[in-house]
Amino acid sequence: MVVVMLPQASEEQIAEVDAKLIAMGCRTQVIHGVKRTVVAAMGDRRAVEAMGLEAMPGVEKVVPIMKPFKLASREVKEENSVVSIKNVTIGGNEVAIVAGPCAVEGREQLLEAARIAKAAGAKLLRGGAFKPRTSPYSFQGMEEEGLKLLAEAAETTGLVTVTEVIDEHSLEIARDYVDILQIGTRNMQNFRLLKAAGMSGKPIVLKRGLSATIEEWLMAAEYIMSEGNKDVILCERGIRTFETYTRNTLDLSAVPLVKGLSHLPVIVDPSHATGKRELVVPMSLASVAAGADGLLVEMHPDPSKALCDGPQSLDPELFGQLMASLEPVAAAMGKTIH
Amino acid sequence: MVVVMLPQASEEQIAEVDAKLIAMGCRTQVIHGVKRTVVAAMGDRRAVEAMGLEAMPGVEKVVPIMKPFKLASREVKEENSVVSIKNVTIGGNEVAIVAGPCAVEGREQLLEAARIAKAAGAKLLRGGAFKPRTSPYSFQGMEEEGLKLLAEAAETTGLVTVTEVIDEHSLEIARDYVDILQIGTRNMQNFRLLKAAGMSGKPIVLKRGLSATIEEWLMAAEYIMSEGNKDVILCERGIRTFETYTRNTLDLSAVPLVKGLSHLPVIVDPSHATGKRELVVPMSLASVAAGADGLLVEMHPDPSKALCDGPQSLDPELFGQLMASLEPVAAAMGKTIH
Amino acid sequence: MVVVMLPQASEEQIAEVDAKLIAMGCRTQVIHGVKRTVVAAMGDRRAVEAMGLEAMPGVEKVVPIMKPFKLASREVKEENSVVSIKNVTIGGNEVAIVAGPCAVEGREQLLEAARIAKAAGAKLLRGGAFKPRTSPYSFQGMEEEGLKLLAEAAETTGLVTVTEVIDEHSLEIARDYVDILQIGTRNMQNFRLLKAAGMSGKPIVLKRGLSATIEEWLMAAEYIMSEGNKDVILCERGIRTFETYTRNTLDLSAVPLVKGLSHLPVIVDPSHATGKRELVVPMSLASVAAGADGLLVEMHPDPSKALCDGPQSLDPELFGQLMASLEPVAAAMGKTIH
Amino acid sequence: MVVVMLPQASEEQIAEVDAKLIAMGCRTQVIHGVKRTVVAAMGDRRAVEAMGLEAMPGVEKVVPIMKPFKLASREVKEENSVVSIKNVTIGGNEVAIVAGPCAVEGREQLLEAARIAKAAGAKLLRGGAFKPRTSPYSFQGMEEEGLKLLAEAAETTGLVTVTEVIDEHSLEIARDYVDILQIGTRNMQNFRLLKAAGMSGKPIVLKRGLSATIEEWLMAAEYIMSEGNKDVILCERGIRTFETYTRNTLDLSAVPLVKGLSHLPVIVDPSHATGKRELVVPMSLASVAAGADGLLVEMHPDPSKALCDGPQSLDPELFGQLMASLEPVAAAMGKTIH
Repeated sequence: MVVVMLPQASEEQIAEVDAKLIAMGCRTQVIHGVKRTVVAAMGDRRAVEAMGLEAMPGVEKVVPIMKPFKLASREVKEENSVVSIKNVTIGGNEVAIVAGPCAVEGREQLLEAARIAKAAGAKLLRGGAFKPRTSPYSFQGMEEEGLKLLAEAAETTGLVTVTEVIDEHSLEIARDYVDILQIGTRNMQNFRLLKAAGMSGKPIVLKRGLSATIEEWLMAAEYIMSEGNKDVILCERGIRTFETYTRNTLDLSAVPLVKGLSHLPVIVDPSHATGKRELVVPMSLASVAAGADGLLVEMHPDPSKALCDGPQSLDPELFGQLMASLEPVAAAMGKTIH
Repeated sequence: MVVVMLPQASEEQIAEVDAKLIAMGCRTQVIHGVKRTVVAAMGDRRAVEAMGLEAMPGVEKVVPIMKPFKLASREVKEENSVVSIKNVTIGGNEVAIVAGPCAVEGREQLLEAARIAKAAGAKLLRGGAFKPRTSPYSFQGMEEEGLKLLAEAAETTGLVTVTEVIDEHSLEIARDYVDILQIGTRNMQNFRLLKAAGMSGKPIVLKRGLSATIEEWLMAAEYIMSEGNKDVILCERGIRTFETYTRNTLDLSAVPLVKGLSHLPVIVDPSHATGKRELVVPMSLASVAAGADGLLVEMHPDPSKALCDGPQSLDPELFGQLMASLEPVAAAMGKTIH
Repeated sequence: MVVVMLPQASEEQIAEVDAKLIAMGCRTQVIHGVKRTVVAAMGDRRAVEAMGLEAMPGVEKVVPIMKPFKLASREVKEENSVVSIKNVTIGGNEVAIVAGPCAVEGREQLLEAARIAKAAGAKLLRGGAFKPRTSPYSFQGMEEEGLKLLAEAAETTGLVTVTEVIDEHSLEIARDYVDILQIGTRNMQNFRLLKAAGMSGKPIVLKRGLSATIEEWLMAAEYIMSEGNKDVILCERGIRTFETYTRNTLDLSAVPLVKGLSHLPVIVDPSHATGKRELVVPMSLASVAAGADGLLVEMHPDPSKALCDGPQSLDPELFGQLMASLEPVAAAMGKTIH
Repeated sequence: MVVVMLPQASEEQIAEVDAKLIAMGCRTQVIHGVKRTVVAAMGDRRAVEAMGLEAMPGVEKVVPIMKPFKLASREVKEENSVVSIKNVTIGGNEVAIVAGPCAVEGREQLLEAARIAKAAGAKLLRGGAFKPRTSPYSFQGMEEEGLKLLAEAAETTGLVTVTEVIDEHSLEIARDYVDILQIGTRNMQNFRLLKAAGMSGKPIVLKRGLSATIEEWLMAAEYIMSEGNKDVILCERGIRTFETYTRNTLDLSAVPLVKGLSHLPVIVDPSHATGKRELVVPMSLASVAAGADGLLVEMHPDPSKALCDGPQSLDPELFGQLMASLEPVAAAMGKTIH
């Protein structure tokens, strides 16, 4: 941590900052330049951040040196984390494919989607039972009925299931029916939910917030991990930018970047990121080439009848083409799909 | 709603889209251009949006014409809404000043802040008891103890109190202690919380999400209002952009824009928007000149000891200067501060 | 400048960085922390930036401490700069109003606009003769014919004229006809043009780039000033964000922020920033309340016939209302309009 | 084009809009809804855009239906455009690799870079002679001396050369020395330069502006093409967003998106997009998997001595690894590198 003093800061103000840092257990050095003095401090960033140094008289700004996340950091754990559940691993040598409809809409629709996913080689099934919708007038999900259908689909097909939870209540219910819980983009900084996820005993897919920095995203993972849950799977799903041709802007550089900063697995959701069916296949291939550990893809037996996200959902035929085209790219990366 | 067909769309596909719209109760017109056909439909946007038209074969895009919010819209209610609570009105001829610390830190700190706020002419007191913090290692708030102190401060000074709630649980507790509940920027699309706020029987300050569009913000208000709560106060608090000199970018144009689209009162939080104490006074003046119905300002008896947001908190002296400089600007706008 | 070394950096790599900094004339201190070593250096930032330290082995990142601009900085010149031209000052006690059409379209249109501007109390006239247009098929401006009309309008009314130049060629021509040259948002980093503006002998209005940071904007001013031209007027005109209800997002906090960092005058263009006529008046008032030294406002005798930017142009009546409503706000700020 | 009228628009105002559209040669239909009337018009978008409809009384907004670009559009030319120069094609079955230093710094440096590029299998050499730099105090390029070195390198190695031009003057000089001219991100809307490029007789690499939408980028290509130059190569190089861990945010979805909208070849610059050497290899692989027609990669014989962009430049060893790892990914996409 480097505390930059204002040009007009007095010697007394500099001494006060220095003393406060020393009192917190930091080793400090005061460096006098021609125009400005800086106080460099080595110590626990988190303790120092709580000190309110920036509000002290004479301080211009505080520049952090260390990263704020710890448990999620590769500096703390060097080797890749691999999440294992049933016959599936995420973060290892296999590219994990999670496929299924935006929302569970009914028994026939979900079981059909599960059959298609399995036939094409996917090992995980997604389906939303609690839907956070922008409009109060839109379909809000089948709730527990939807979860029961997911459990039935899992039993029938052997697929591992993923569903979004939107508060502590829905998390409590979903725990009993599905294998992996997902925290959506709008809840990435719902800190109560993150803590509950940390105590859930289930692997968590943590989507990046719509305008979350890499650091905030890893801090959200830190919330979950600090409650004892190490099975966090990060999911890049596009950020909000000025570009409106796509629903969001897929920040694919985040994949190798986060894999450098953290040991956690990173998957990509090209469906929400782009919002356009015709971009899902190329961006899926690109994700795997960028080093992603898996994909979360919206697929519906009949997208034109979907209650949500139809325009970005693959139909069964396109999904089959996706799975076929992924194989050689995964192979080029030294990975497998199945 | 205008459905734009692809250049290669067949007559059959056009007819299917048209038929689907008519079946939903829309009046339609099919317009054949040189390169493209469009189907124009007049009807209930919300019903049409649920139809999944964009996923139908032959459709290029769907362009909405009507706005998606209803209860929050000025088309539905022409005159300004005024929220009244105790001796305070928000949305009328008075500029409402809400002042106080980021977090309730203790009895002395809060009562002192309340005294300073009242002495300078503010009528509302803010103070956080449940703090959503980016880091799990930061101070998370005094919770119910903090709320009790807010209630004591209200009793002592007669100030109207505002506090943030972060989930249904904290909302249930806070209802018993404070006058106005605030939904923070990270929870603007926490739809469960919005619904609970709609049933709380308390006025709600609804902060704009960090990357929420105007439309999403008004849709969040619509969630609250659709549960029967008409007392929604919108609060602009800065959006996330590429600029890093300020904590966020205060989107002040949103004030007159939203007041044109909606009848709800709009206030501004210049403290979180800028993150810099020296910008709070000029941006407060600018907010009032832009037509804001009030201000939410962080003020701390001793900012250098604040447990959060010290750098952007006004000290008592600066707060007094703010109140003094606001008067002539409010007068120029035909409004009063007290 | 603080050089943060990677955790695995060798003692040799640290020594090399230190030696390189010393060789550049910096005073350095090497600070060993538990996980990382940093090398703090006090010296000329510009020299150090050219050294490529970030590419040296063992270096994680380089954190600058000093600001990169010099001539534009308030640290170098404490008192406000005031640009004087004819009977007008910009940056002093008077709020400068520049009004006129987006484009010079013809003699009658421009002279009528000038008459309206003058009658309402404006002292400066704007009008574009070289128009940078997104589409090659749009109206590109009257070029030298337009400049002659500006000169005629100036002679007739006594107004001070402002026009945009888009390259060295148009700058050379415009110098002979108008009082103040403007560099537009798309050319803020056209460095050749900035240098030419620096040698033009004319005051320059420098608009902020669509996605320029405050620092890049001040560095563009530095380009002009480093060629000997001290008469730079900065103009905030909105930045590009995700919000689409307005044409751009007016970053009004930039006004007090830049006036803190720099001694240069700052004006605001609420017309391009918002793109909506009904927002121009409130944002003009807000700009003056935020401390702006002037306004650049689009006004057209008949906006529905304007060849560009009609939707954001004030008509004569609205312009009169703007001028009337500005007076009390300026007075509240201790300034005058006339 | 759909003109949405305000709820309070009079019949007369609607008739005026309709009449104006008909006078421009449009076929129109007036559609009366419950709350609003819209006027749908089929005709030449460009003509209609110049009409200023949005400024007419009673008009709420104008919604365009057609895309504004023509020559660059795939609707006008269905098959892929392939740019051929010497023994190189861009846009066909081969992935074109352009490699070389940010700036030409001297004879030895450039010839060494050319040797390394050729040895590893690249067919094109980049090197900047005119450098647009944020600071007036940074190295501004070797200008014509640098171009001569590029020409020498081309003669020695047979590589095709690419260099950036920053104004009409530098374009005139560069034409005589290099094969392909590049227009940089800061000049994407320097319309004079675009027109000059259109008349240059050379293939043009057109980088996307820092905050340019897809549509603005294609309109910039339209400027070049409307002067008769069909050899435009689009280059995605990252856009500006709130994320600061990377220099920019590589918008890789733009590759398949633009290839759908346009017939022009699209290449990617992962070096400027990420600003970090360790992200260049994964994002190069991802680009090819997303369908890019080529890569523009910064490579320097000794990045720690580079005068610009050292931190993002590959050294010879990393560049060799990149070329080796690209082969299987290109093969998976049915393409070749050599």
